[in-house]
Amino acid sequence: MTPPALKAEIIAIGTELLMGEVVNSNAAYLSQELAQIGIDVYYHAVVGDNPPRIREIFETALRRSNILLVTGGLGPTDDDLTIAALAEMMNTPLVCDPQSETRIRQYFITRDMPMSDTNLKQALRPDDAEVIENPVGTAPGVYWDITQKVATKGWGQGVKIIAAMPGVPREMTAMWTQTVLPRLLTMQTSPSVLATRFLKFVGIGESMLAEKLRDLMAQATPTVSPYVGQAEVKIRIAVKAATQAEGMAQIEPVETEILNRVGAYCYGKDDDTLESVVGEMLLSQKLTLAVAESCTGGLVSHRLTNVPGSSAYTRLNVVTYSNIAKEKMLEIPQEVIQQHGAVSEAVAAAMAEGIGTKIQTDIGLAITGIAGPTGGSDEKPVGLAYIGLARLGETPRVKKVTVNPNYAREQIKTWFSQYALYYLRQFLLEE
Amino acid sequence: MTPPALKAEIIAIGTELLMGEVVNSNAAYLSQELAQIGIDVYYHAVVGDNPPRIREIFETALRRSNILLVTGGLGPTDDDLTIAALAEMMNTPLVCDPQSETRIRQYFITRDMPMSDTNLKQALRPDDAEVIENPVGTAPGVYWDITQKVATKGWGQGVKIIAAMPGVPREMTAMWTQTVLPRLLTMQTSPSVLATRFLKFVGIGESMLAEKLRDLMAQATPTVSPYVGQAEVKIRIAVKAATQAEGMAQIEPVETEILNRVGAYCYGKDDDTLESVVGEMLLSQKLTLAVAESCTGGLVSHRLTNVPGSSAYTRLNVVTYSNIAKEKMLEIPQEVIQQHGAVSEAVAAAMAEGIGTKIQTDIGLAITGIAGPTGGSDEKPVGLAYIGLARLGETPRVKKVTVNPNYAREQIKTWFSQYALYYLRQFLLEE
Repeated sequence: MTPPALKAEIIAIGTELLMGEVVNSNAAYLSQELAQIGIDVYYHAVVGDNPPRIREIFETALRRSNILLVTGGLGPTDDDLTIAALAEMMNTPLVCDPQSETRIRQYFITRDMPMSDTNLKQALRPDDAEVIENPVGTAPGVYWDITQKVATKGWGQGVKIIAAMPGVPREMTAMWTQTVLPRLLTMQTSPSVLATRFLKFVGIGESMLAEKLRDLMAQATPTVSPYVGQAEVKIRIAVKAATQAEGMAQIEPVETEILNRVGAYCYGKDDDTLESVVGEMLLSQKLTLAVAESCTGGLVSHRLTNVPGSSAYTRLNVVTYSNIAKEKMLEIPQEVIQQHGAVSEAVAAAMAEGIGTKIQTDIGLAITGIAGPTGGSDEKPVGLAYIGLARLGETPRVKKVTVNPNYAREQIKTWFSQYALYYLRQFLLEE
Repeated sequence: MTPPALKAEIIAIGTELLMGEVVNSNAAYLSQELAQIGIDVYYHAVVGDNPPRIREIFETALRRSNILLVTGGLGPTDDDLTIAALAEMMNTPLVCDPQSETRIRQYFITRDMPMSDTNLKQALRPDDAEVIENPVGTAPGVYWDITQKVATKGWGQGVKIIAAMPGVPREMTAMWTQTVLPRLLTMQTSPSVLATRFLKFVGIGESMLAEKLRDLMAQATPTVSPYVGQAEVKIRIAVKAATQAEGMAQIEPVETEILNRVGAYCYGKDDDTLESVVGEMLLSQKLTLAVAESCTGGLVSHRLTNVPGSSAYTRLNVVTYSNIAKEKMLEIPQEVIQQHGAVSEAVAAAMAEGIGTKIQTDIGLAITGIAGPTGGSDEKPVGLAYIGLARLGETPRVKKVTVNPNYAREQIKTWFSQYALYYLRQFLLEE
């Protein structure tokens, strides 16, 4: 009989987290890591630098989980209380770890920095705990197998391990990678890892996607679940399997089925972004692009140039915020702007044509709209934009888009840029 | 006798948090908000979409805290279980809230989007709970005073309130600001609030700042602490006081002392951004600005136009990524680029002069550099940039900046844009 799968719980200690001065990104990092090696995480907890409350959190966690990954509270100051609270809870004396003491002294000597006595507090560890070396800072961690002690106290059954690491992300990740993860891998009794695939969608809402995938979302395995992203929706397909390869083999038919149903809205997977996908298409089709933006103020250009190697297809982008700039830079006749208004199908078309012609790129992309919070009217409200796309020497095409006018200005810009890149992708697909 | 101060606990619900796919930034936001109104937060908890575990977390929280702020699990899909789990725990039937139903239907009608039946699940609320309107999405929240019910169950004493809000940050913050916060303010019994002031610095590192403020950072109250931000350092001054006004009065002399010592590097406070500060200076000095970017790819322009009202000083910005664009758009002689290279003091100067002249703005700002990961050389490594600033008709000035070449491309772009705006501020100060 295989033993039950290990459950882990992630506990962060530090009043700065409860004050909201620091976001608990460590919990997300460790959760991702644990998911990849098939250890379930059912709870995260955050508690301040307060021994009775630290102890309460640990007792609760030991009753329901096997592995307690603890971050924070290992520093040299008086409010760093993790190790002392743990030792007291388990009725275990603290001893000074001679190797830790040497390393701490050495750390200050090699950096030519004065050491204060409080730093030596960091060399203390519970009597029968092991020290986790800190390759990038002074605070050592503690790896403590308390299986026997917990059983004696009647606090829970099975393996009980506490791994205490610093709250500074780079120190925590260094200790996790070099010491804690390898140890957990050797004791990992679960036969499975988690394989995942994210599919990314634009132009379809979460509830409509859920409607079309209801039967797949209801099935037990692989699981299919929606996530709302920044101006996009993601679908995650996930399955537990013995290996990543076996997991991906189970994911593949589900992915194919999803793409059969709603593939028209899917622009990419996993780490793809709209700008990286569009960039690859431009590269492979050997096309150059020029962008004329108004309401997005440079965001489309910024996103396109976030892609390494984007200089291969980027020549010139312009932000023609004023009418005079539209006229002078893109040679849009004053009458067109006067007759239709700067936010119009006619101007979007003229901008796309104008920017492409200006620098003789294969494609011109343009966007003009109203990002708010002011500048809207009944006829042309905040959230309205027109996106123009033109092949050099051909008639431009224009799409109208509307975004929730209650969104903040930056958010509206984000949505506009998302639509601009989405329609650019459609345009490149049709070529 | 004053009643004991209220204690709040922040509970996030969602398996995506336990998988590490989402960072729990909501907890940090709500913690900051609660600190400002003097409500203590002793715990954060995260639990997955699992009714028995959701219930366990709530029972524990009700025993030790008065106000449970809950985020997540209010969506339309089958794994959004918060409201149902709460109702079951309190033995309270769910009813359909007619106003919520109307609003949800209206939401889809005004956006011309098809509604699925699952969306109506979001109109359910516990019988005696109130609905919190969602001004920016479909999921309503729930505000539920369960003081009597909890007392009957023997789960704890005193005021017991549950406020359930969506996990999407913009929806949560809208509900918090418009509904939950005002209600908590009316019941707030704590004798003290936390008053804070953030000062923001560019051009000086955290350790140098700490060195210059060491004595202030050692004092007990007001507390002075450094925070590392995105390409900037913040100093927080904080103090507990009976009112915000009393707190700010204690903060003021400390703020003055800090500015006396390191004010040269301080660009603003609290919600200020470099782009908002620069925007205000341009407005008050009645100046217009044009920007020519190369390596930042539109980010400087994007940031400047994130400020509402930026159309008052923005005419035209260009991203001249290619040499041909620099030549054609900014009329930089081919020889200058050939002789000095595109990343050079001479080209930065010519770009700043060229863009200002092109559209006749008062000031031209330019940046050219190497954002990586490729394109660097021994002489001109990744992380090098030149920033040019020119008054119309005057000789341009150029600053050279270097950024850690090990940073990721986007991070290098962020630092470059920060320096560009920082030097623009210096330039405007000197005018």
